Amino acid sequence: MKTMKLASMPTIKRLPGYLHVVEAAAREGLPYISGTTIAEELELEPIQVRKDLAVTGIIGKPRMGFPVPELIQAINDFLDWNRGHNAIVLGAGHLGSALLGYSEFNRHGLKAVAAIDTDPAVIGTDINGITIAPAEEMAAIIAAHRIEVAVLTVPSGCAQEVTNELVRCGIKAIWNFTNCKIKVPSPVIVQQEDLSSGYAVLSVKLRLQQGQADQPRSGADEETPG
Amino acid sequence: MKTMKLASMPTIKRLPGYLHVVEAAAREGLPYISGTTIAEELELEPIQVRKDLAVTGIIGKPRMGFPVPELIQAINDFLDWNRGHNAIVLGAGHLGSALLGYSEFNRHGLKAVAAIDTDPAVIGTDINGITIAPAEEMAAIIAAHRIEVAVLTVPSGCAQEVTNELVRCGIKAIWNFTNCKIKVPSPVIVQQEDLSSGYAVLSVKLRLQQGQADQPRSGADEETPG
Repeated sequence: MKTMKLASMPTIKRLPGYLHVVEAAAREGLPYISGTTIAEELELEPIQVRKDLAVTGIIGKPRMGFPVPELIQAINDFLDWNRGHNAIVLGAGHLGSALLGYSEFNRHGLKAVAAIDTDPAVIGTDINGITIAPAEEMAAIIAAHRIEVAVLTVPSGCAQEVTNELVRCGIKAIWNFTNCKIKVPSPVIVQQEDLSSGYAVLSVKLRLQQGQADQPRSGADEETPG
Repeated sequence: MKTMKLASMPTIKRLPGYLHVVEAAAREGLPYISGTTIAEELELEPIQVRKDLAVTGIIGKPRMGFPVPELIQAINDFLDWNRGHNAIVLGAGHLGSALLGYSEFNRHGLKAVAAIDTDPAVIGTDINGITIAPAEEMAAIIAAHRIEVAVLTVPSGCAQEVTNELVRCGIKAIWNFTNCKIKVPSPVIVQQEDLSSGYAVLSVKLRLQQGQADQPRSGADEETPG
């Protein structure tokens, strides 16, 4: 594995987009892709692209660009997407089901091997080849499959309670899709996925589009270089 | 409506979290809530909370804090969440179904009034009281319900094609859950929701937790003041 450099959160968040573009170039059989091409595709500045991709240890060659297969490998190494993580989905409602079936995650190492729900009507049913199990079986399932990641899509009201149980079961990371700010002991990881934040931005943009107020400060957007 | 100040994207993204905490205080019947309490609940710095909430025009009183009902009203005004937007969901798979049923959005003005799919097996079926319609009816439905927002959960391969059709139908904003970087003419709004970015951050945190590489630069996280 190449030496990995320091990376900011915004850089890490942009890496899947780069991977998407570079994989498309690979499918077209291109040996190299320029930073400018990647920048145009993703509507970023070329300098931003070069700075971001430097974290992978791959440097573009003048007039050639980045070597496509090496860059794909290096981004996947950086994100640790070549290694698999077994995951359990808590709450097999529509969102949980959507995540269970999302091939994009599966392809990048997140393997949902189990799902838990408390609704007797869904326990025992099958979603994408996974049989929904009752809560009582959670601890045994996590141990048996060496599950590291929990995807939390339970109702907010029971999010902390389920989290506490997951921590007792030795889970390493919780991907939290509830709007409850769950608390975990170190070194357990929480990644908060807040769909309300996206809706807030959409709402403010709509208000501005309709001329009801002033513009956001573009310079303070998190998409600008850190 | 109060005079609204300039706001950065990170501030806008944090507002739903503030609303969540302040609404909980309202349910407990508290007339005031301090910036420090909000900060502790959301694991932010008190100075950040005060700076963020200043965009709503509400200022906390010394030793009292922020007046709860006024702050709820002001955040909702800022986000334009007191006004309704009719929405159409494109692609009634699991993710589309999850979003159709997400009461959090509904409560904040995003009213899904229609859903479109191309799968004959789901057309005509009902999700959360909405009957899935075929693609041919999209234009008529958007016009009849004065739909402003489209929630895009179609396969990436047809995302741009569906977007072009939505733009022709006069849609004002597209909330894009596909990993395709869709292009729209001004002034149509696109809000990209990238679940892969969250998974990338989770993956890197897991790699670091397991001691395989060095730390991200904390100072460049987008959650710090802009």
